[in-house]
Amino acid sequence: MTIAKPGQLLLVPNTLDLGTDCEVPLDAVLPRAVIARAASLGHWVCENAKTTRALLKRVHQLVPLAQPLQQIQITELPRPAKGGGKPAAPPDLRPLLAPALAGHDVGLLSEAGLPAVADPGAALVQAAHALGLVVVPLSGPTSLLLALAASGLNGQIFAFVGYLPVEPIARAARIRTLEALSRREGQTQIAIETPYRNDALLAALVQHLQPTTQLAVASGLTLPDARCETRTVAAWRQAKVAELGGRLPAVFSWLAS
Amino acid sequence: MTIAKPGQLLLVPNTLDLGTDCEVPLDAVLPRAVIARAASLGHWVCENAKTTRALLKRVHQLVPLAQPLQQIQITELPRPAKGGGKPAAPPDLRPLLAPALAGHDVGLLSEAGLPAVADPGAALVQAAHALGLVVVPLSGPTSLLLALAASGLNGQIFAFVGYLPVEPIARAARIRTLEALSRREGQTQIAIETPYRNDALLAALVQHLQPTTQLAVASGLTLPDARCETRTVAAWRQAKVAELGGRLPAVFSWLAS
Repeated sequence: MTIAKPGQLLLVPNTLDLGTDCEVPLDAVLPRAVIARAASLGHWVCENAKTTRALLKRVHQLVPLAQPLQQIQITELPRPAKGGGKPAAPPDLRPLLAPALAGHDVGLLSEAGLPAVADPGAALVQAAHALGLVVVPLSGPTSLLLALAASGLNGQIFAFVGYLPVEPIARAARIRTLEALSRREGQTQIAIETPYRNDALLAALVQHLQPTTQLAVASGLTLPDARCETRTVAAWRQAKVAELGGRLPAVFSWLAS
Repeated sequence: MTIAKPGQLLLVPNTLDLGTDCEVPLDAVLPRAVIARAASLGHWVCENAKTTRALLKRVHQLVPLAQPLQQIQITELPRPAKGGGKPAAPPDLRPLLAPALAGHDVGLLSEAGLPAVADPGAALVQAAHALGLVVVPLSGPTSLLLALAASGLNGQIFAFVGYLPVEPIARAARIRTLEALSRREGQTQIAIETPYRNDALLAALVQHLQPTTQLAVASGLTLPDARCETRTVAAWRQAKVAELGGRLPAVFSWLAS
């Protein structure tokens, strides 16, 4: 009896175009070797099997899949609770990694960007470490850092705070707390929102942040109609057209002076 | 007289292999369209002209440069102060963007990963916004988020804290402060260090963090000898071989429970 060398858990980045009406060429956002690696895999764990199959079809147009799509094993992660705070004790995800223990590399894919960052998947990575598997993160688009880089705000110290409260009074309080933290630490604050609430969040930030605070909005990153704008809150208040629409993913960053 | 349409400021990601004895294939970490865009540019702003020329030679092997290397304009950024805290008032970098005002796209390149994140360049991005130029961040490797994704720690809430103090007493105090913050907020803390001090930082983290805190170390990301390990501090204390060596860039992340 031979014991197979364990497979690796590959963290495969996804495009940032899900849910938009644009399909970005894979070659614009994913390295060729990452596309080839994705084409070679027979086992995936993902947020959504349907969108995973859609991505694999796009992969196949550039690098033929090593096996027919119907034969590729695609398993969905359990649905996580959304929002911030300490994550609950993760469920036992080790069974999802059985193919790796049997010697097959397993790809982890999220709906956008790098898995396990502002996205589910971290619990699977923890399970992989617990099993002693090698975890390999692959290069690709990451909306948070693309937005931060394009903001011109402090990239030496920053915090990603996830989603802000939806309820207006709690949201205003949270915005002020984070602004005070930004001022005290010189720390850029980064938040995201569900696209259909983008304009409500932008309006709240423009209303509650101080006029001298710099506010950056990046929407539709990597898409042809991407916008990256950085202004003081005072200038945002004077900007006539500040609507994002409810269609494109957006990242909001601010730095108090 | 015609007025040229302004060029864009392109944030071009670099490989993560500078200073290592390994040269990663560009196709492993950069999308083909990003390589082609880099090959097309006649104007660059960078940290270091020599390493920029070295990257352009690697680009040329995949996509021929649009003009001879000797004719490409490469301008170095003023040297920034290292470390955290609020950045000083930025110098006037608008002259570096004169080519963009004259209609040429300008590439911004750092020594590793995405420019303006844990790296200089943010002041140039600010200047671009002040001039009304379009800023376009391009997809590529970002060691901080690759490390975070591979850690399995909380990717929904995290902070990048830059460099910790070198002086041992101040460093121990900072580690304890950040651990308390991590426990209170459920926030993953991410720090970096100059490679030759990696082992000293790892030793300090293992010494001063609580035994139940999870500590992740990612070194040599995207390189063949990349290592991504996540353990409790108690397990790190028992690990016999925990030396990183002073050669590879590393990212340290921890999450207190």
